[in-house]
Amino acid sequence: MKISHLLLAALLCSSAAPVASAATVTVEAAKKAAPISRIDPTFWWVGMKNPKLQLLVHGPGIADSKVALAAYPGVTMDGFQRLESPNYLLINLTISPEAKPGKLKLSFDGKNKTKYEYELRARETDKGRVQGVNSSDFIYFLMPDRFANGDTKNDVIKTARARTIARDSMYARHGGDLKGIEQHFDYLKSLGVTAIWPTPVVENDMPKASYHGYAMTDYYQVDPRYGTNEEYVQFVRNAHKNGLKVIHDVVLNHVGSHNYLFLDQPAKDWFNRWPSFTRSNYNSQALNDPYGSKRDLDLYNRGWFDTTMPDVNQSNPLVATYIIQNFLWWLEYTGLDSYRIDTYPYSDPQFLMAWNKALLDEYPQLGMFGEAWVGSTAQQAFFAQNIFEPVDGFKSNLPGVLDFQSQGAIWDALKEKGNVTKLYDALQGDWMYQDATRNVVFMDNHDMSRVYSVIGESLPRLKMGFAWLLTTRGIPQLYYGTEILMKNFSNPDGLVRSDFPGGWKEDKRNAFTQAGRTPQENEAYEYVRTLGTYRKTHPVLQTGKLMQFIPQDNIYTYFRYDDQGNTVMVMLNGNDSEKSVDLTRFAERLNGYSAASDIMTKATVSDLKSVKIPGYTALVWELKK
Amino acid sequence: MKISHLLLAALLCSSAAPVASAATVTVEAAKKAAPISRIDPTFWWVGMKNPKLQLLVHGPGIADSKVALAAYPGVTMDGFQRLESPNYLLINLTISPEAKPGKLKLSFDGKNKTKYEYELRARETDKGRVQGVNSSDFIYFLMPDRFANGDTKNDVIKTARARTIARDSMYARHGGDLKGIEQHFDYLKSLGVTAIWPTPVVENDMPKASYHGYAMTDYYQVDPRYGTNEEYVQFVRNAHKNGLKVIHDVVLNHVGSHNYLFLDQPAKDWFNRWPSFTRSNYNSQALNDPYGSKRDLDLYNRGWFDTTMPDVNQSNPLVATYIIQNFLWWLEYTGLDSYRIDTYPYSDPQFLMAWNKALLDEYPQLGMFGEAWVGSTAQQAFFAQNIFEPVDGFKSNLPGVLDFQSQGAIWDALKEKGNVTKLYDALQGDWMYQDATRNVVFMDNHDMSRVYSVIGESLPRLKMGFAWLLTTRGIPQLYYGTEILMKNFSNPDGLVRSDFPGGWKEDKRNAFTQAGRTPQENEAYEYVRTLGTYRKTHPVLQTGKLMQFIPQDNIYTYFRYDDQGNTVMVMLNGNDSEKSVDLTRFAERLNGYSAASDIMTKATVSDLKSVKIPGYTALVWELKK
Repeated sequence: MKISHLLLAALLCSSAAPVASAATVTVEAAKKAAPISRIDPTFWWVGMKNPKLQLLVHGPGIADSKVALAAYPGVTMDGFQRLESPNYLLINLTISPEAKPGKLKLSFDGKNKTKYEYELRARETDKGRVQGVNSSDFIYFLMPDRFANGDTKNDVIKTARARTIARDSMYARHGGDLKGIEQHFDYLKSLGVTAIWPTPVVENDMPKASYHGYAMTDYYQVDPRYGTNEEYVQFVRNAHKNGLKVIHDVVLNHVGSHNYLFLDQPAKDWFNRWPSFTRSNYNSQALNDPYGSKRDLDLYNRGWFDTTMPDVNQSNPLVATYIIQNFLWWLEYTGLDSYRIDTYPYSDPQFLMAWNKALLDEYPQLGMFGEAWVGSTAQQAFFAQNIFEPVDGFKSNLPGVLDFQSQGAIWDALKEKGNVTKLYDALQGDWMYQDATRNVVFMDNHDMSRVYSVIGESLPRLKMGFAWLLTTRGIPQLYYGTEILMKNFSNPDGLVRSDFPGGWKEDKRNAFTQAGRTPQENEAYEYVRTLGTYRKTHPVLQTGKLMQFIPQDNIYTYFRYDDQGNTVMVMLNGNDSEKSVDLTRFAERLNGYSAASDIMTKATVSDLKSVKIPGYTALVWELKK
Repeated sequence: MKISHLLLAALLCSSAAPVASAATVTVEAAKKAAPISRIDPTFWWVGMKNPKLQLLVHGPGIADSKVALAAYPGVTMDGFQRLESPNYLLINLTISPEAKPGKLKLSFDGKNKTKYEYELRARETDKGRVQGVNSSDFIYFLMPDRFANGDTKNDVIKTARARTIARDSMYARHGGDLKGIEQHFDYLKSLGVTAIWPTPVVENDMPKASYHGYAMTDYYQVDPRYGTNEEYVQFVRNAHKNGLKVIHDVVLNHVGSHNYLFLDQPAKDWFNRWPSFTRSNYNSQALNDPYGSKRDLDLYNRGWFDTTMPDVNQSNPLVATYIIQNFLWWLEYTGLDSYRIDTYPYSDPQFLMAWNKALLDEYPQLGMFGEAWVGSTAQQAFFAQNIFEPVDGFKSNLPGVLDFQSQGAIWDALKEKGNVTKLYDALQGDWMYQDATRNVVFMDNHDMSRVYSVIGESLPRLKMGFAWLLTTRGIPQLYYGTEILMKNFSNPDGLVRSDFPGGWKEDKRNAFTQAGRTPQENEAYEYVRTLGTYRKTHPVLQTGKLMQFIPQDNIYTYFRYDDQGNTVMVMLNGNDSEKSVDLTRFAERLNGYSAASDIMTKATVSDLKSVKIPGYTALVWELKK
């Protein structure tokens, strides 16, 4: 879908002229009488930059209705249109900047006459809403179902398709929720964390195994096992009060097969269809292979992610508009700070450009980042703002990506007999990005083995990893529990998504507290805490420039520095034994300094000519004049 | 060096006004009397697009001379200038389009008065000169010293620093020469070869181990052990008569330490200098690392390639002009077809842009390719014409590169239990190039192990490699002897540069002939010959479009096709056992065809729905309506 098509779609209108209706009923009465089950977006605002709004009305047989809008200053109905299904209608509105908050009175004249009062709200004006995420942040990534159970009343929802919790099954719900996260804001703050990224909080009302959140069944509802919509709004507000941002995890490419739009489809082309179930080839290279076949491209872009995850046809401009409005709605409704976009490259490329543009036009500070799990820096940069000419009309306008390249590199660096040069190589490729500091760096996540297991449960090497994570360029992301040595491999599936010990009242120990952690766990926790809080109070590690030197002898040295004379030196020794390092080759950054303070040991360093660095150790030195 | 500086340099002139001299002497007399040992370029032409010419005059004490040019219609002396050394002078001339061929009379008035007649030639007008290299070609890459000894009289040059030949030493000269290559033009033609790339033929008058040609001692001389300058001109002419192009291998970055310009240096800044010998870090990533240190960049760009290979300071505009003129001179003088540029990324980036521009301005068809032996497609594409915005002012204008990425991929594909998907991946990255068909594809060369050894001396897998080499995109390059199963590993050094059996009269066998080859060698030779000659007569394999499909079950399938209805299907089975392949997923390219002709077996294929492909086999099918 081209952007121009999207705009066109917003202007489309049916041939029926709007008819003003004089009849009025109370909202409650109208809702009861109505065959209208829902209108999406569920409400809207006056004063949005884009004056266009397209309502998707759902109700049995609603399609044969003529729609009228009662006179409302500043709001015009441009028309309404049927879709393939008899149960849907689209209404196109224009909301001028002068329009005031209130209720739009819509009347539907068909087999069943009905009315609907559609709410236009005033925009919230609190400061601190939608702050965007950037390199000053430190993200904590968690699975709400697996982090902490703060409210046992919402563990089982009687109307849900899955009505059991079973903490001994990795595929069942465990009961964690928003309240559980809120109860541990202090824990997160103690680490220096400034942003929380939960896996998707939207409704996943699937019969099984949707605890992860990536099988959305309602675009406009928080999963009731996590809390209500209003509780989510309150969650964001509380997070902001605590100096914590909220990153909302979203899936654009697919939905759960029990999504209401799939169960009762507006039109056949709302989803990508195949004669029989056809899986994606999961190979993003098909997108920009100059020699690629149409078949491979279709399989990638239009194939289904899973049998239970229908692929949304974003090249349908009506679908695109529906999705774009949904994500404007979440921003404006909750004040959340940023989006993390799942399976980013699987979406229609032109749709992605339109989606980002619409969001960034309204919220330029958003700083979103996408998941593009690909094999090279170039392919990864292809999905972020980059220095490439457009390829087949695609030029990404996504601010950042999850940096799977440096993640692979830190694994290679931290493994026994690892190679720290991979870290240098990974960052060197940043010349392809417009601004690689918008990328999110991480060592593990819910889809891969835990780094502590990958590196052979070596605490010294894990600490090197933490040092790198919190001092390199970009936005560091910690996967919940890595700071307390949670471990396991991605196969068999699920164990990397274990519960945080202490998140449930019945847990034998509470690893949120010092007393509940082993000495080794405390050592890891303290390492993150020390460096995380140092980072939080030292902008040079957030926004300072980076200079890296080509590693020698498996020792990687880099500097963060700014124009105010702040410099932090980081040196990672990838060898198992102590090494003597001549520091004179770093003169460009060391000149002007005479000493340093070791951030981890608190020791004062008075010799900047050479250093003995122990095996598998990171030095983090704040340089002193 | 910026391009603007180069132009400025060409315009620089001394304060002395040109003085016309009435005195004349014969050329011979002038040369004998002169303290002038040489003037570079050794001669020039009228009618070049760029009217500027800068002569570097060398002679003991010449710098104190005033220079005058006798009146010559269409030629003006813009000035002359001293350099740091007393033994050099630069003369800046402008040669207008109206100037006629003839002799410029230069007089030098200093301690020793002298005269010099500088020759301006008419440009050659034969067709077939400087044809450029492109994807219609099939390149044979050889080392002249190791291919064939056609003239034993030039084996030992009495005035050379190294005066022995020793075929039992891999570091000594073996006696091969231009004549030896010429004597085997028929052999090369039998393979379908259309272009010869010898390692550098210029003088390498080093005391030892310069048989490879990459330690140039004279910019303007062919190494006498290969032939004279005029014999090289004749070699190019004969090659052209035989339908063979000549690719001239050049080194821009460094020279041999016995180069006359290093032994008697025009100025200290003619070479990159260090307090003591300082080696390059050999890491091109320092060039475009956005976080790189100046130190790493300097080491890369200005460090020496080897103790015997001084690094030329191309950021000196006078040096840049000297080099640019030299390579215009070789083109115009010999009519050679294209340049292969050694150690391309090591040169000054701005110089590279100026050098390419100057050559392409004069010979747009040149189609040069550079050696950029780097670790990723993005880094490789950085040194070719690409779709990147300029990085630090560098935007490469080199048409193509040696494709080390697909070379790595074919090794991975052909090894036992190899992975053919690497071939798909390598080509997928072509979205980064302006035109990747200008890249040279190859399986081995003089700097790496021979592919036959790398893949465990498997003839079936090597044949798969040949099939790929001659049907994929780009310009195929065969390293001499790979077609007759020459083998060995790059360590210990030298064995991959062994003599072609039969290139020397005393050889026990002559592998240039069928009788001199083993049955296995003949099988390999015939495979290359069959496909090479097919490629030569079927433009679809040269310039046809490519469509590749994501490999499945370690089977890689692609098509070359054109708008005239020609299609060739290639399928590589990377498994050791026969596989059944359903062809229906290739419908995009198979539709409209009902049969095929197997190019290798000559069999007719009547079923395009499925195929059984034997293990480690390539199918090459010409599709039929």
